[in-house]
Amino acid sequence: MDMWFSDEHTPNVKLSIRIERQVFSAQSDYQRIDIMESKEFGKILVVDGDLTVTEKDEFIYHEMISHVPMAVHPMVKKALVIGGGDGGVVRELCKYNFIEQIDMVELDPLLVEACRKYYPQTACQLDDPRVNIYIENGLRFIRTRENEYDLIIVDSPSPFGAGEGLFTKEFYGNCYHALKDDGIMINQHESPFYTEEAYQCQRMHARIVNSFPISKVYQAHIPSYPSGHWIFGFASKKYHPIHDLDGIRWNMLGIQTRYYTPRLHAGAFALPVYVEELLRDVE
Amino acid sequence: MDMWFSDEHTPNVKLSIRIERQVFSAQSDYQRIDIMESKEFGKILVVDGDLTVTEKDEFIYHEMISHVPMAVHPMVKKALVIGGGDGGVVRELCKYNFIEQIDMVELDPLLVEACRKYYPQTACQLDDPRVNIYIENGLRFIRTRENEYDLIIVDSPSPFGAGEGLFTKEFYGNCYHALKDDGIMINQHESPFYTEEAYQCQRMHARIVNSFPISKVYQAHIPSYPSGHWIFGFASKKYHPIHDLDGIRWNMLGIQTRYYTPRLHAGAFALPVYVEELLRDVE
Repeated sequence: MDMWFSDEHTPNVKLSIRIERQVFSAQSDYQRIDIMESKEFGKILVVDGDLTVTEKDEFIYHEMISHVPMAVHPMVKKALVIGGGDGGVVRELCKYNFIEQIDMVELDPLLVEACRKYYPQTACQLDDPRVNIYIENGLRFIRTRENEYDLIIVDSPSPFGAGEGLFTKEFYGNCYHALKDDGIMINQHESPFYTEEAYQCQRMHARIVNSFPISKVYQAHIPSYPSGHWIFGFASKKYHPIHDLDGIRWNMLGIQTRYYTPRLHAGAFALPVYVEELLRDVE
Repeated sequence: MDMWFSDEHTPNVKLSIRIERQVFSAQSDYQRIDIMESKEFGKILVVDGDLTVTEKDEFIYHEMISHVPMAVHPMVKKALVIGGGDGGVVRELCKYNFIEQIDMVELDPLLVEACRKYYPQTACQLDDPRVNIYIENGLRFIRTRENEYDLIIVDSPSPFGAGEGLFTKEFYGNCYHALKDDGIMINQHESPFYTEEAYQCQRMHARIVNSFPISKVYQAHIPSYPSGHWIFGFASKKYHPIHDLDGIRWNMLGIQTRYYTPRLHAGAFALPVYVEELLRDVE
């Protein structure tokens, strides 16, 4: 069978994956959702034509967006996930027994439903009793919250489509207010490599730097994403991502990972010169 | 113009780059060599159908294979580059005034000639008076050298084609003997992500561990290479890649880079769990 899915990285670059079969396809009120089976990446989730999750490498994205703040903040009790309808972030957070409440705000109910049915690898903890799912606009949800969360993870789609509002100055300001005095916000921060995305990275960083006293960026190798060089934002009211990293405490928790380690955590904040310069320009 | 070059990462995954025009194409005694012009990656060099060098991201590969050992070894005077016909490694080494001699051993004269003519970005230092170019089989060249080099950089093609001999136990043993008592060998180590290459990584590591007392692995984000997650081997008789890193001395040299920094150097050795496990299995 010679069927290929192509993910457009730029108008001049694309990554193609051989597809065995299409498992699910639907148009929701917000976006087109496809789930396909592939030999190399296992099941892949495609949203509006963009490769979003693959069975083979989703652990990298979900571990890096979740465990970095968890190894810094001494006691997260209440966490908020904005977006993340596939459930991957919730799955990672559920590994921490001391987290008491995880609110997840996802705009698209069909995405959650499709992942529950066809993507149990990521959606497996959505029924954990600590998890509350709000089918709502994240931007609207966050406006009314104040001094409530220890951790906010913004697991948004790209800034080009339905998730656009999750990349505004107003949104980051609202996240700041929704966090407690020692809260941390993590956001997926696109890739610094291709010109258009690098510009988005820069714009996002400028806005977060304006909203939070501590704002750093860290990187991971995510092969299925454009350029494979992905970055995350670490914005914080009090804790520094490296000085306040407590690797010994984190290791004592005995949490199983396939990518994240506290040693890698520190290394992930050491950025290439060209990325440092991109960000420094707006600091 | 809708012309695309596709680089096969696995039989089920390929990266495609839009091509403006083909600049050069020839079959040498050893391999087919193509140079093409692309919008996104600038000029690209393709050897036997494999994407080898791109104008946009070659700095990452060449900086990471060169400056990591140079920031550890206190005084490299004589260096050997095996392969590297495009000249990128030589260009980086030429930035160090105290290096007295750089021998480059490349099998294919046509590759050197084509890069001199069409790829000045990498080939620009091949006429430096300290550089000696040997058009020879690297495996044969190294057999007769003993206690001669401070640094050997193995800038080989993949282990599947003409470069196969540069991945054998015999070859690594000969590099050991060609190095002085405090010498360092760096080699390109493929990617740990896709199954077939991960196996090559493991096999290579097993052989190097057997030949050198210190053998570590470090990583870089190279978007145009399969998975974008590339690793390098650091094999050494005496110096440890992190404990003997002298970032202050290196910074004092004033060498301009766009990827490498001594801070990133240390971080590059912090590997993901799945890569650590892959390598630990054969240590």
